[in-house]
Amino acid sequence: MHIGKITGNIVVGQSGGPTAAINSSLAGVYKAGKEAGADKVYGMLNGIQGLLKGKLIDLSEKITCDLELELLKRTPAAYLGSCRYKLPDYEKDAAPYEQLFQILKEHGIAAFFYIGGNDSMDSIRKLSEYGESVNSSIKFIGIPKTVDNDLEITDHTPGYGSAAKFIAAATKEIIRDSLVYDQNNLTIIEIMGRHAGWLTAAAALCKDKDCQGPDRIYLPEKDFDRDVFLKDIKALQQEKKSVVIAVSEGIHLADGRFVCELSDKDSYIDEFGHTMLTGAGAYLAALVKKELNCKTRAIELNTLQRCASHLASLSDITEAFEAGRAGVMAAARGITGEMAVIKRVSDSPYQCAYETHNIKQIANMEKKVPLSWIKEGDDGLTKEFIRYARPLIMGEVMPVMVNGLPAHMDNIQ
Amino acid sequence: MHIGKITGNIVVGQSGGPTAAINSSLAGVYKAGKEAGADKVYGMLNGIQGLLKGKLIDLSEKITCDLELELLKRTPAAYLGSCRYKLPDYEKDAAPYEQLFQILKEHGIAAFFYIGGNDSMDSIRKLSEYGESVNSSIKFIGIPKTVDNDLEITDHTPGYGSAAKFIAAATKEIIRDSLVYDQNNLTIIEIMGRHAGWLTAAAALCKDKDCQGPDRIYLPEKDFDRDVFLKDIKALQQEKKSVVIAVSEGIHLADGRFVCELSDKDSYIDEFGHTMLTGAGAYLAALVKKELNCKTRAIELNTLQRCASHLASLSDITEAFEAGRAGVMAAARGITGEMAVIKRVSDSPYQCAYETHNIKQIANMEKKVPLSWIKEGDDGLTKEFIRYARPLIMGEVMPVMVNGLPAHMDNIQ
Repeated sequence: MHIGKITGNIVVGQSGGPTAAINSSLAGVYKAGKEAGADKVYGMLNGIQGLLKGKLIDLSEKITCDLELELLKRTPAAYLGSCRYKLPDYEKDAAPYEQLFQILKEHGIAAFFYIGGNDSMDSIRKLSEYGESVNSSIKFIGIPKTVDNDLEITDHTPGYGSAAKFIAAATKEIIRDSLVYDQNNLTIIEIMGRHAGWLTAAAALCKDKDCQGPDRIYLPEKDFDRDVFLKDIKALQQEKKSVVIAVSEGIHLADGRFVCELSDKDSYIDEFGHTMLTGAGAYLAALVKKELNCKTRAIELNTLQRCASHLASLSDITEAFEAGRAGVMAAARGITGEMAVIKRVSDSPYQCAYETHNIKQIANMEKKVPLSWIKEGDDGLTKEFIRYARPLIMGEVMPVMVNGLPAHMDNIQ
Repeated sequence: MHIGKITGNIVVGQSGGPTAAINSSLAGVYKAGKEAGADKVYGMLNGIQGLLKGKLIDLSEKITCDLELELLKRTPAAYLGSCRYKLPDYEKDAAPYEQLFQILKEHGIAAFFYIGGNDSMDSIRKLSEYGESVNSSIKFIGIPKTVDNDLEITDHTPGYGSAAKFIAAATKEIIRDSLVYDQNNLTIIEIMGRHAGWLTAAAALCKDKDCQGPDRIYLPEKDFDRDVFLKDIKALQQEKKSVVIAVSEGIHLADGRFVCELSDKDSYIDEFGHTMLTGAGAYLAALVKKELNCKTRAIELNTLQRCASHLASLSDITEAFEAGRAGVMAAARGITGEMAVIKRVSDSPYQCAYETHNIKQIANMEKKVPLSWIKEGDDGLTKEFIRYARPLIMGEVMPVMVNGLPAHMDNIQ
């Protein structure tokens, strides 16, 4: 499809939590913007928060060749910096809107692209609605990005595939590590995801001929029952010495209490009077140690889940780039108030198409793992999930190794 | 050098904590053993502990081609399983020795190879001494393995380079992640190393044109002072918004108390009466939050430090293999009671030779980071450390990717 024509300048920003793929979408917007004939592609530093302070840079001064564009695609986190800024309702407080539109006008902006998750899409919704209300011709387009994979309409979100690949590879290596000693032991891997279990479900992807996969996987989509859990672990330990389970940080009891909040709070006040938030994994490890008296360890996969570019998924990095391009093409066709979405055309061979979709049906929604994809007894995910998720982790983006380490585009300081 | 000739069978075992390189040494012993003409290369399951139960397997039945040998080199943890078994002094209790030597005799063992760290080298010392005392002809050779890099005589230990590469890459990605928000924040990365700071020092390797590196690095080789630390962080926060520091889990005050033990213990008893061991990172994050009131987070790099084969160092995997080979060659020359050591011949180009060295000068020693390599003010490591450590993380061992993930040799169950 022809890229279309953009007259004037465009601006792009990043918002919300870092991922391994968000810079690839930035590269996609930049490249497509240039191809569509935009005079300048501006980057806003620290999202809308920076834009309100007039912090704009001309990206052509930073990205001077295709080699740098490739490096940008391999750089984790957010090259332009990020923010967590919530726009007010414009009907109640139009001031920031007037200010933003003034800045956009001064810079001759024809289209505005915002790469982010749920909150960022809400910003696009508000900006496009305000734009319509003042008859602005500026197009506002969202580019999806979140490791949580919880955006509606799009088949999946850029950022999820790379996070899933790292989680599955790390889980496989940890399972391998847990097998070395000839004694009963339980390893609990705690994985990101407060409300949606997509990231934790990715641990199931390591099950293969050379790996049994996690013995149990607990997602926030289902209520967690401590008694059933303990009975289950006990039974597993009769069968095998090394038991490995994966839990979402957001697992909760039927009454809604998060497992990570179950500890007696008074016991977790530190010497400064702060509550130490013990994770779900640490809580369950202590529970098992007390009730079953076996060797336990809790491992948090931590920040690398979202920023491990050194093991990024080629599918993901490519799709993130294409989602950026799709956004620019939509703007060139005069569309506003929409988000780029990935539409799966077929599973085998895996093929996707890129479209845009009305932002109102996406913002403020949350897509969860279908209950029918979670196996009875929590001992894994069904083949429907594997069929869905496997293509998303396929392929590798070779880092450019310099001095033994992956090279990055350094942030704009 | 010619590999030499071994008459009879050999046996090899793995002991202590898993690493990304220990299976490469196993591959080296196997390959060299076959080349030296050993009839059978036995693997002991779960080290000496399994050997005492007669748990031996013929490795030729498991490793059937060079492709599998390559896969073994790319598999983390310990293919044969491990143990933490301490042999008694044979003068006080000869029973396990008599039992072991009986088993070795029954299997026609001419040479015994043990891949491990400090404790494992002590086992080799004891076995070779007992062997001499009973005029046994069996050769006992140690193959070094530890992510801690704390073995004497050898320039460095197999396992360290891959751990250092993962730590440096992860630190770089976390630094990138920490830069996205436009507000003061402190990230504390806690890295393995109770007494020796080699692993934490590796975080310094990410400092390059595209990365400022950690702002401070605290090793257990130096006493830690909370007041100086707080003053230092405060000063840093005047200069820059995102501050990232790396701390060894084993940092301690001048009076010897570990920082991870400083919290008021009563506050960390969980609801089951267990003491929750808060790490040094979590303690310091809470300290900074209280004293400087800024956003802090503590990240433990956890188990992946030792088992992230997906980002192994080619230097390390190659040297681990060659150390195994050097051990076999020494046994073939009639040597016993020695450990394979890596001798650095030159820095530039980086070149190493392989020798063996009297185990008595290695077992029960601990090599630490020279104080002269730690910069005044703890703001990094000197160029001497970088010159030492850089070659150890160079090069990549491409994983064999199957279904989007690194393939492994599955453990013998």
